[in-house]
Amino acid sequence: MSKKRMVIALGHKDLGYTLPEQKEAVKRTAVMIGDFVESGYQIAIVYSNSPQVGMIHTAMKDLSENYPEQYTKTPLAVCSAMSQGMIGYDLQNAVRAELVKRGIYKTASTILTQVLVDPYDESFYNPIKLVGKVMDAAEAKKEEDNGNHVQMIADGRFRRIVPAPTPKSIVEIDAIKTLLDADQVVIACGGGGIPVLRQGNNLKGAAAVIEKDLAAGLLAKEVDADILLITTAVDQVSLKFGQPDEKKLDKMSIEEAKQYIKDGHFEFRSMQPKVEAGIEFVESGNGRKAIITSMELAEKAVSGLAGTTIQ
Amino acid sequence: MSKKRMVIALGHKDLGYTLPEQKEAVKRTAVMIGDFVESGYQIAIVYSNSPQVGMIHTAMKDLSENYPEQYTKTPLAVCSAMSQGMIGYDLQNAVRAELVKRGIYKTASTILTQVLVDPYDESFYNPIKLVGKVMDAAEAKKEEDNGNHVQMIADGRFRRIVPAPTPKSIVEIDAIKTLLDADQVVIACGGGGIPVLRQGNNLKGAAAVIEKDLAAGLLAKEVDADILLITTAVDQVSLKFGQPDEKKLDKMSIEEAKQYIKDGHFEFRSMQPKVEAGIEFVESGNGRKAIITSMELAEKAVSGLAGTTIQ
Repeated sequence: MSKKRMVIALGHKDLGYTLPEQKEAVKRTAVMIGDFVESGYQIAIVYSNSPQVGMIHTAMKDLSENYPEQYTKTPLAVCSAMSQGMIGYDLQNAVRAELVKRGIYKTASTILTQVLVDPYDESFYNPIKLVGKVMDAAEAKKEEDNGNHVQMIADGRFRRIVPAPTPKSIVEIDAIKTLLDADQVVIACGGGGIPVLRQGNNLKGAAAVIEKDLAAGLLAKEVDADILLITTAVDQVSLKFGQPDEKKLDKMSIEEAKQYIKDGHFEFRSMQPKVEAGIEFVESGNGRKAIITSMELAEKAVSGLAGTTIQ
Repeated sequence: MSKKRMVIALGHKDLGYTLPEQKEAVKRTAVMIGDFVESGYQIAIVYSNSPQVGMIHTAMKDLSENYPEQYTKTPLAVCSAMSQGMIGYDLQNAVRAELVKRGIYKTASTILTQVLVDPYDESFYNPIKLVGKVMDAAEAKKEEDNGNHVQMIADGRFRRIVPAPTPKSIVEIDAIKTLLDADQVVIACGGGGIPVLRQGNNLKGAAAVIEKDLAAGLLAKEVDADILLITTAVDQVSLKFGQPDEKKLDKMSIEEAKQYIKDGHFEFRSMQPKVEAGIEFVESGNGRKAIITSMELAEKAVSGLAGTTIQ
């Protein structure tokens, strides 16, 4: 009997914001992954990287400004690649240690992943993702002069804002599939993947950020997963979130989920892409389910006893 | 018939020193790799990362000093992981583009790699690798106060100096083997791999740098390669290098190579580890050969028409 396959999309909370937080957070995350591996799942892990990319972008921007003769600017796509190294290292280590502790000798490794986006994606005309260094007005002005978009996030404080195009295909998908087929734990599409545009035979890094939930959904589809598990800060998806008559959802059909989105129930930049990723994955094949819940309830949720299931 | 397998260790020259140089250099390197793939070789690529780690270390050190309330220090092992992302991204892209140009649809991907070292390795008592940020006397003093070693590299200019322990085993070896078995191009053990020490079930990053040639030799042994190809700035290994009676070597037996090392023919930190890596690989199995040459002559060298072969 072939093993069940799960793609897990980790939220910020499951990775922490600083390096020391990251080191602690991945230990807890690894316990969840160890549980699923022990239950017989093949696992691919996707994660959010925005605090880490913010840190790296700040460091590399300051570097090129402080040593202009020595160092050039580091494009956002390269910062994203660096964050896959930074996070993947702690994550694969934590998973490895957790598995060894359980007597399971299974390699966990990170595949540096690029994800193709469409240059005509409408998001390129409507950037929505704040990234990188917090700037003052003068820095922000310089950034705009360089052709980048900025947005004020507080009085006199600005950040760059970039598009979040839809992921179209995963460049290193064959490597990811091969490792999953070999029953190894794979960390891939970190931060949604490095967004790239096709230019003839080449791929060119895009100044954009891909929603990691949508990348995880695409990955789940392409590796023919049984479950897409999206962990987040809340235990369940809610209608009228935060209102007195908030209604937590145990499950949604595809039709219900689409209707809820249409009715504007979900926060555009946080819950909505999770539900969208779930819809797209579940629609893509028979017997597929998507689960949105907190890491703490993930195991119960996979057994149908917690969280929100889209099916 | 099973395919021949080659591990290629790239020198600084084949990757460049800055990001724009790197982008250009990897294109030339990719042509060499494309040629070997077209000749039917399965390829794993290892590379040197010291300019890139230097850049990242400088950026991350400045970051933690400039924003002490927000960011902690970034350990050298994490900088090394970040450099695998930075370099792997350009390298896998260049290889992919070169293969697509030739009509070959084969995935090239980077496996974030840790390499185990021995805490009792004698190199820990005798650091030899200069790494990271160039510091003034005050910064160097602070570095020493933090328990790190520094060395003066020019009047009033210092760099940190770290040990170069011998690589003992490759943590993610199963992932690398699996991808090679699937006939994919694998980039692994970048910069010699992230050096880690075993602590119970955990691995802990070591403040050290592994010689990438030795890591490549170990990788070649573990994936049962036929050829270890080390590209460098010279076309051949020489005895009495740079002297009037310099003698270029077409080939060396294991015995000759060992004798030359004993006689002090090779520069301790550059040519010697290449020859050592070659000896260890060739000794490890039948029919194995190691080649040291420039990237430009690599193809001829593999046919026995250039470079220095250890066999």
